[in-house]
Parts: sequence; C-alpha cells; structure tokens
Amino acid sequence: MNGEIICIGTELLLGDVLNSNSQYISQELSNIGVNVYYHSVVGDNAERLGQVISNALERSDIIIATGGLGPTQDDLTKETISQILELPLELHYPTLEQIQSFFNASHRKMTDNNIKQAYIPLGSIVIPNKNGTAPGIIIEKNNKILILLPGPPREMVPMFEDFVIPYIVKKEDTRFFSRYYRIIGVGESTLEEGLIDLIDGQKNPTLATYAGNNEVLLRLTANAKDEESANEILEEYEDIIYKRYGDFIYGGKKDTLEGVVAQLLIDNNITLSVAESCTGGLISSRLTTIPNISNVFHSGIVCYTLDAKEKIIGVSSEVLDIYSDVSPETTRELCIKLNCKTKTDITMAISGIAGPGGATKDKPVGLIYIGILYGGETEIFKYYLRGNRIRIQRQASQYALEHLRKKIQSII
Amino acid sequence: MNGEIICIGTELLLGDVLNSNSQYISQELSNIGVNVYYHSVVGDNAERLGQVISNALERSDIIIATGGLGPTQDDLTKETISQILELPLELHYPTLEQIQSFFNASHRKMTDNNIKQAYIPLGSIVIPNKNGTAPGIIIEKNNKILILLPGPPREMVPMFEDFVIPYIVKKEDTRFFSRYYRIIGVGESTLEEGLIDLIDGQKNPTLATYAGNNEVLLRLTANAKDEESANEILEEYEDIIYKRYGDFIYGGKKDTLEGVVAQLLIDNNITLSVAESCTGGLISSRLTTIPNISNVFHSGIVCYTLDAKEKIIGVSSEVLDIYSDVSPETTRELCIKLNCKTKTDITMAISGIAGPGGATKDKPVGLIYIGILYGGETEIFKYYLRGNRIRIQRQASQYALEHLRKKIQSII
Repeated sequence: MNGEIICIGTELLLGDVLNSNSQYISQELSNIGVNVYYHSVVGDNAERLGQVISNALERSDIIIATGGLGPTQDDLTKETISQILELPLELHYPTLEQIQSFFNASHRKMTDNNIKQAYIPLGSIVIPNKNGTAPGIIIEKNNKILILLPGPPREMVPMFEDFVIPYIVKKEDTRFFSRYYRIIGVGESTLEEGLIDLIDGQKNPTLATYAGNNEVLLRLTANAKDEESANEILEEYEDIIYKRYGDFIYGGKKDTLEGVVAQLLIDNNITLSVAESCTGGLISSRLTTIPNISNVFHSGIVCYTLDAKEKIIGVSSEVLDIYSDVSPETTRELCIKLNCKTKTDITMAISGIAGPGGATKDKPVGLIYIGILYGGETEIFKYYLRGNRIRIQRQASQYALEHLRKKIQSII
Repeated sequence: MNGEIICIGTELLLGDVLNSNSQYISQELSNIGVNVYYHSVVGDNAERLGQVISNALERSDIIIATGGLGPTQDDLTKETISQILELPLELHYPTLEQIQSFFNASHRKMTDNNIKQAYIPLGSIVIPNKNGTAPGIIIEKNNKILILLPGPPREMVPMFEDFVIPYIVKKEDTRFFSRYYRIIGVGESTLEEGLIDLIDGQKNPTLATYAGNNEVLLRLTANAKDEESANEILEEYEDIIYKRYGDFIYGGKKDTLEGVVAQLLIDNNITLSVAESCTGGLISSRLTTIPNISNVFHSGIVCYTLDAKEKIIGVSSEVLDIYSDVSPETTRELCIKLNCKTKTDITMAISGIAGPGGATKDKPVGLIYIGILYGGETEIFKYYLRGNRIRIQRQASQYALEHLRKKIQSII
C-alpha cells in the first residue's frame, strides 16, 4: 500500500511549530509495511487544502491527514474533504456526548463552537479521542482510505496506536514485526561491519541501524502473516545479535539508559551516591527524572571547585596538589571520601575537562575519568571525548551510566 | 512573494530523520516577508521528485529545495531539475577546486564521485559550502527562483543565512526586521491581554507570542525599506513593551535562561552554591553547560535523602523532624547550612514534591519551595506546579533560575 501524509496548519508554514507528526507517522507506517512516498504541509486555506488533498487522492492509496479539526472557523479539514468527496457532514450523537463529558470532567463549560467537532462526513468511521475533543475520522471511498486525525501529538499518537495501526494491519495480508535494541559502546559503522553477513542481501528479516545521542538503535524487522511466524524468524536473528553484541545492549526502543539504570537500582535495592565535576549534575539530573529513584539515590555532589572537593567531599589538599583535580587519583579519592559520608552500596565519581577552557599540555579538552566504588574496590575508566562542551558532558554522562549498568549487572 | 519548501530524501519518508529544515527555512522566510504556502517531502526518485518540482513551479514564485546533492547515484536533485528546466549540467571549475581543497584540509582523499558535485545547471549562481562538498545553487528562469541547498543543517543553515537571505531581500522593495524578547513569569494569554491594544488591528509593526518551555517568546516585526526606518518603528513599541513587562524579560531570541544567569554571575564575579532536592541536579546541570561557570559556581548538592540533608549539608535532624523535608523551614536551613560550608555570595536551595509519589494530605505533588540566601537574608518562594514529574522538575528549575536572575539584578 502506498501512503501519504498531509499536515494541516498555518503554524507549521510559519515555522512556529516543528512538524514532528510526519516523522512519527512515517516511522509507524514503515513498520507496518506502508510505503510513504510524500509528505505535504498546507495552511488552513480551503482552496490550497483542497488542491493538496485532491492531488493526494490521485497518487496514493492511503492518506493520513492531521490538524484542522478544531472548533474554530479556521479549522476547515472536514468541510473541505466533505466537498471533495461529496459526503455531507452529519451530527454524530455519540461524539457530541463524548465532547460534553470531556468538558464536564475538566469542570469547564462546553462552548457552542465545539458542536462543530461532532459533525462527521456521512458513512465514515469515528475514532474516539481520549485526550481532547476532536474525534478522528476514517473515510473509505473509491478504493482510497483517508484518515483524519487531530494535530496535537498527545491526542494524535494514542489514536494512531490504538485504532489506526490495527485498522491498516487488518487490510494487509502480511505485516511487519520489529524488535529494537539500544546499544552503547559500539559505533554504528563497527556494528554494521560486525553484522554485515546478516545485512548483505537481506530480504526477511531486515536489519537497520540508527545512530544518535551516543548510542545506536538497531532494528530487526520480519515480514510475516502473524506474530507467531514473525517470532520464529526474529528469534533466530536475535540469538546471533545477542551472541555478538549482548554485552552492549541495554534495552529496547522505548528505554532510556537512565531509566534502565534507575530501575536496576530500585529493583535490587542498591543505593548510590555520585560526585560529579565536569558533568555538572547531568548524571544526577538524568537519574532523578525516574520515579521512585529517591528510595536508592542518596545524593549527588557537583564538586565544581577544589574547595568543594575538599570541604564538602573531604578529598585531601595533598592529593589535589600532587595529582591535580583531573586525575585517576583524585577520582578515586572522590569515590572513597564520598562513600565514607554516604555509606551507599555504590559510589561513582566523574572528573574531566569539558572545555572550551581548562586544558593543559598533558590534559586535553575531553579527557574524562570515571570512578566506580563497590565493595571496597574502586575501578577507574579513562576516556578521550570529542566535541563541544555540551557534547562532552553528554557523552561522559552516557559512559558513566553505562559503566554503572554493567557494575550493577555484575553484582545482582 | 509566495514560497514553497521541498525537502528531498528517503530517510525523511521513513521517519529516520526529523525534518527540521522545513521549520528553520519557514521561520527565516516569514521573517523576510515571504509567504510560505506549502512544504513537501519526496524521496530520491526521479519521477516523483520531478512531479513535485513541476507542481511547485506552477504555484510558487520561489522554491527552496534541500537534499539530494550528495556524490552518490541516489542523489538526483540537480539531474532532475536540469531536465525539467532544460538547463544542461556543466562542470564548474571553482567548485571543483573548492571540493578538492575541502578534502585536502581534512587529510582525506577525494573520490571520483565527488566530481559529480561540481556540476551545476547552466547559468546558475553558485553558493559556496564552507562545511561540506555540495555547493548551493540558485536558478532564475521564467520569473521563478529555484534554490537548491544541501540537506545537512550544519551545511544548509550557514549558506541560508549568509547567501540566501541577502539574495531574497535584494529582490524585495521592503523587508521585515524583527526583535525578540524572552519572558518568564507571565503566561502567554496574560501577556496577550496586556498588549491587546498593540495587537488589535496591528499592521506595522506586528506582535506575536509563542509559548514553550515555561516561557514566552515575544516577536516584534516591522516592515520597512531599511534598518534605520525599521528601528524607528520598533523602538516606539519596544519602549511600551519594556514599560509594561521589562521586569519579566530576560533576553533575546538566542538567549537561554541558564546562559543569562551564568553570564551575570561570571561578569560580576558573584559566587554560587546550590542545594537541590526535587530538581535532582537539573539547576546545576543547566548552569554548568555554560563555559567559564567554573570561576563562580562553587558546588551543587543533590540532597535527595534525609540522610544527605543531615550528613552532607548539616541540616539538623530536629528541623527535619518538626517541619519535614518539604517545608519553608528546611529550605531555609538548607541555604544557611550549605552557605556555612561554601561561603559563596549566594546560596540557593530547592525542595518539593516532583511526584508521582510522595504527596501527603497537606503537600500535593507539585508543591515547591525555592530559597535564596544573600547577605545574611534568606527569601523563600512557594509554588504549586502542575504536570508530570519531568515537567515539574523543569518548571521548578526555571522559576529558581528566574529568582536567581532577579536577585543578581538587584545587587549589581
């Protein structure tokens, strides 16, 4: 099936709003085997909108349009499509009730113009909207499918997941089943080389890699008639992937590294304290975005000055004088002295030079030490990172969390 | 002038890459008075690409196309346009030299397929590319302008700023001049109401508000023949805006709140230490993204547990027992006790309940206290914030930095 995505809204044409809907819908359609050949964006203007939709109806089997379903006079999507497809709008009472109860639940008064949102083109299928007032609409006519969804992602995405994907999948003989693996510590090109025997000449399943944020997302996709047949294909390949790169896989598509690490700490009741110099609180900040981390995260110290390393953590001035603040010795002392205060199961320390200033002859911008203390032993890891300040901080936090994950894995 | 943006690349249609180019170009074209009526995305396919470009040439005066200028066989943009406009491709020697020196500078060997990038449609204007090998191309034919740019934003954006904007501006009699104001502490609708006399019936200048990330960006735009005439119009309105909302304006379009606060600290040599509970290191992390902050940022303590508040900062167990950890009294103690250790000019503390757990009958999720100690006095601010955990943490850090900014402003 050939698909096309149309996003409707003048705010997109002005650049006031980033068009993230096109990317999301493209990814989802690709996953279920729909070939997306075009994206379009057009404003809230009946004539231009009509042209874009007519054009799409000529060249595509399925069209997903988002936006322009609001209550105001500007919102013209349904009206325009009703004219093009010659399907009059009629009041849909279950939708009207749903809009009314949406307003009741949020203790607001429904205004008259919201009634407009309960009108739908004759004979179309209604997709209920749990997070707003505009219902989604599926129209089938002349062997074409036209699906209208609201513009705000928090309304559109759940409707797409719960209704649109199952609806499209039912129309197809075979569909696509994917598994995702988040990988840290292996670059994209190294990974591709290491899997080249699987990638070369691949038909079913297919493998693809996506790099970003100092990690790689690996996608494994099978084309099959049902989940069971897909799993048979996928498991064979998954075994190979795990044999080669299992140590580097930290999670699946929706996982984050901080989420996986935090959950490991929480589930195994392992307490943690962290001393951060060059990462400036980023590791603490990432871990504390996760609910319930307060049960195991004792404290994080951003010891940005020598004085803070001495007075707050208790590193001796001799160590700082002899070895300087960016050194394996100081990183080790940060772990040991902080652990004396916090008595946590694990204590981690990071020091380094994030730049752009602060480099010396022996210590370039990007030099980072990561220390992990557990059971009386402190391990030190050294990296030379590249990029600007923010990129170095982000990479350092990524490597530190990955070492932490491996340490927890080794002790549970 | 009516404009249209075409982004070329199969990776966009698969959803592998987010289309940020359309937003950037839309914003810039809007700023210089070009009406953007359409965005399109199409893959690296000669037939479909040809259709999209022909369609655009019929309906728009100026077309900006990005992508498909690479060295490989997939990259078809120039070849397709050369056919449609009947402009043969010819080797452009200055571009060939530039590509060669680009490779020399990065100590890499130029491959044969890069020569393809030095071919341009007959009679077109070449835009040099400082950050890559694909030059930009401007074609004028039949009263239409077609501008081809490389897809990677780090190549495209500088070429757009340095060449495309001046080129378009020269074609127009008048152009648009904008000033931007970043505002915290006033909601978008309140701001709009407070400026309604300026907004209603506005022609020149125009005012627009954009909300996001717990702040509002206010745009003031004049349409004028040159900068001097524009400034005359803008300054009259800027005076009114500052009279009404000057206290809430922290910077311009490219500023960030952490950047402004950090620079104020650095420029005035004011030292800072921070105790963070519910924000978990986010404030320290935001401030330490700014170069040279190490001169003034002494330390940040993420005191997530009662034990950390007692043992590391020195809050007495009595205060914690009597008032609990989320209270004005404990927030004040955090400031005072941390300041005893750090002796910084300002000490800030934040405690609160980020959720989803941790609420009590009197203390809902979203309750936040911010304390600021300066010159022996501690001020406490209380907020009830709404949203999920990450949103509450982000808002709390935003308000804390804004109070810090105001405190610094009051003492310098």
